[in-house]
Amino acid sequence: MQISSLPLGYNHPALLKVLNDPANLSTLVNRPALGNLPPADFPLRVQNSLIAVAPKGLTNVKTMACGSCSNENAYKAIFMWYMTKQRGGAPPSPEELETCMYNKSPGAPDLTLMSFTGAFHGRTLGCLATTHSKAIHKLDIPSLDWPIAPFPQLKYPLEEHEAENRAEERRCLDQVHALFREYTSAGRPVCGVVVEPVQAEGGDNHASPEFFRELRAITKEYGAAFLVDEVQTGVGVTGSWWAHDLWQLDDPPDIVTFAKKMLGGGYFHTEEFRANSGYRIFNTWLGEPSKLAMCEAVVKTVQEENLLENVRQAGSVLLDGLKHLQTKYPTQLENARGLGTFIAIDCKGGDAHRNKILTDLKRKGIQSGGCGERTIRCRPALIFQPHHAEMVVNAMDEVLAEQA
Amino acid sequence: MQISSLPLGYNHPALLKVLNDPANLSTLVNRPALGNLPPADFPLRVQNSLIAVAPKGLTNVKTMACGSCSNENAYKAIFMWYMTKQRGGAPPSPEELETCMYNKSPGAPDLTLMSFTGAFHGRTLGCLATTHSKAIHKLDIPSLDWPIAPFPQLKYPLEEHEAENRAEERRCLDQVHALFREYTSAGRPVCGVVVEPVQAEGGDNHASPEFFRELRAITKEYGAAFLVDEVQTGVGVTGSWWAHDLWQLDDPPDIVTFAKKMLGGGYFHTEEFRANSGYRIFNTWLGEPSKLAMCEAVVKTVQEENLLENVRQAGSVLLDGLKHLQTKYPTQLENARGLGTFIAIDCKGGDAHRNKILTDLKRKGIQSGGCGERTIRCRPALIFQPHHAEMVVNAMDEVLAEQA
Repeated sequence: MQISSLPLGYNHPALLKVLNDPANLSTLVNRPALGNLPPADFPLRVQNSLIAVAPKGLTNVKTMACGSCSNENAYKAIFMWYMTKQRGGAPPSPEELETCMYNKSPGAPDLTLMSFTGAFHGRTLGCLATTHSKAIHKLDIPSLDWPIAPFPQLKYPLEEHEAENRAEERRCLDQVHALFREYTSAGRPVCGVVVEPVQAEGGDNHASPEFFRELRAITKEYGAAFLVDEVQTGVGVTGSWWAHDLWQLDDPPDIVTFAKKMLGGGYFHTEEFRANSGYRIFNTWLGEPSKLAMCEAVVKTVQEENLLENVRQAGSVLLDGLKHLQTKYPTQLENARGLGTFIAIDCKGGDAHRNKILTDLKRKGIQSGGCGERTIRCRPALIFQPHHAEMVVNAMDEVLAEQA
Repeated sequence: MQISSLPLGYNHPALLKVLNDPANLSTLVNRPALGNLPPADFPLRVQNSLIAVAPKGLTNVKTMACGSCSNENAYKAIFMWYMTKQRGGAPPSPEELETCMYNKSPGAPDLTLMSFTGAFHGRTLGCLATTHSKAIHKLDIPSLDWPIAPFPQLKYPLEEHEAENRAEERRCLDQVHALFREYTSAGRPVCGVVVEPVQAEGGDNHASPEFFRELRAITKEYGAAFLVDEVQTGVGVTGSWWAHDLWQLDDPPDIVTFAKKMLGGGYFHTEEFRANSGYRIFNTWLGEPSKLAMCEAVVKTVQEENLLENVRQAGSVLLDGLKHLQTKYPTQLENARGLGTFIAIDCKGGDAHRNKILTDLKRKGIQSGGCGERTIRCRPALIFQPHHAEMVVNAMDEVLAEQA
């Protein structure tokens, strides 16, 4: 599914129909600079696509071209929000306006953003400072000294490790507290925390809804923003439109970023995180309205075809099947886990073992992928049905039997 | 022209034809993850679009979605090239692989990139560290302590200020030398220099071909990369496909970035700047092949309709007309300057005066824009003809007469 970026598989009629509409062709040929010259129908397009699925409590949205740009600009929105708060309504000082031009404090202040070990938030320099999944992404690139908290390493099956996992999440949250205190007292304010609902590139690492609820509370306590990166977990793959819906937060996140299956990038945010003047969050294209037309078709198709329910059913068949296989092949597989069809399982023989299974699966017609060091991940489109899940499980059974 | 991003104006038949081709529609619906699963015709598409207009000496190209991503990844390519050179063929050390994961040296080394005052290279955090055009772009965003050299401030008319301008360029180049020495001796190597052929957002600031030739020589002397950002100057607007063609360099640049009128982003580079392993320069989409199909149509149209010659002729009419107007209205305008149709003129009454002229021009049907503090810039598409230039000059004559 093109690195988890096709929501409805290949050649879906609803998307073909959008692109056969001459009005959309004109939008493609005459791509607007959305920040300056949005087409007349842009508000309606945004309403029918992004706003139709806005996370609870987030009433604003900003469009971008890709996941990295979405996170980069969300980080900027957080820094601007923080400094605007610090100024208490006063305008920036002449010194700030002058020093920022030379990358110096106080205009370019020494602010920080907290991320987690194992996280992936993109590869441009700002994003990369919060990405910690693989050395190959980061080697040789200068970075920023920003706080990095440990992400919980849960043990599976969850029901057999409740106390241990609770202690592990406690350990990580204590570190979040400690980093807030450490950086703040060093005069380097932590303006926000960015987190994935499931660390995808990092190896499908999950944490409990309680962990995320407490993390949200901690950000409030320290006056920091809470940014949920749903670039990979969004758009129904967990059985909810947004993975963080499952946390049942009292306070919604401040910002939620998206890309991939939304077919374009951007971020949702609360009113507070709207930049306080024009041209502060800006670039030439700011996304592309033709992508919104496609996104609208995706939103409608998911609703009309009840695809979230389909994801829950297919995911249940797939996860049960993988749990069965890890019992049947206990020397090969462990840690089957997932939400909806966002499912993964670890290979006991490490990287080489995992890659052998992926290759053998491909020979049987199953295209799959890896994440983390020894994990197989399933990232089907939303049209993946229970009988497809059975096909995957059967193919994997054959592959494992051949290796046993 | 949508912030200088439409090469052939609106609804050009050649572009409409591309998007009416069912094969291209399929590419739009099934957008590939180009780094992993490029379509079979991708090499041919790249050959017929980007490579067909590759800058002299640059045989490789990497596609990206937008200008900021293009520069961000070009910067990364420079840092990787530099460290690969430093290692002399040895693999990265275990310490490097471990420390980079936590944003620490030596894995995330304290490398720098030189840029110029007044430059604009984008707004993501890495790009923004090299952007110095307006405070509103940079205020409140943490940045990197990278060297910033002065960009020449030339006096016009050039033919009356030859000695002064030569001295001004010498002053700036001396500062480039000084910054190389200063940062290097502080243990913070300057791995490259990024420069625009004309500082566009910064106010259409030009420098002589001699300035750029010497800048290229200086980068060679210090073992640094020379990156030319042609996001705004590329694609024929100066009368050459690339503005840096006009410098007649003996050594080509190491990297040239593009976006806007190329309809998608990316960078050309020499073989040396190819990442030494997979997944080092990577993201999910890496641009979009449907943009290459449109780019191919642009390249063909420019050739078939001899549009570079058209740009030179229309630009000549426009620049001569503006020079005439600044003589006729000496209290209002000065410093008419440009290459091809990439033309600008300064308003003596500053920001308010400039904006009044822009608004009055709009009332007469001329859409134009501002850059720098008091500059009007012309950024027509390549199909802008000599008689259009006459219309612009006549409209501006009327506007200036009303203000006089």
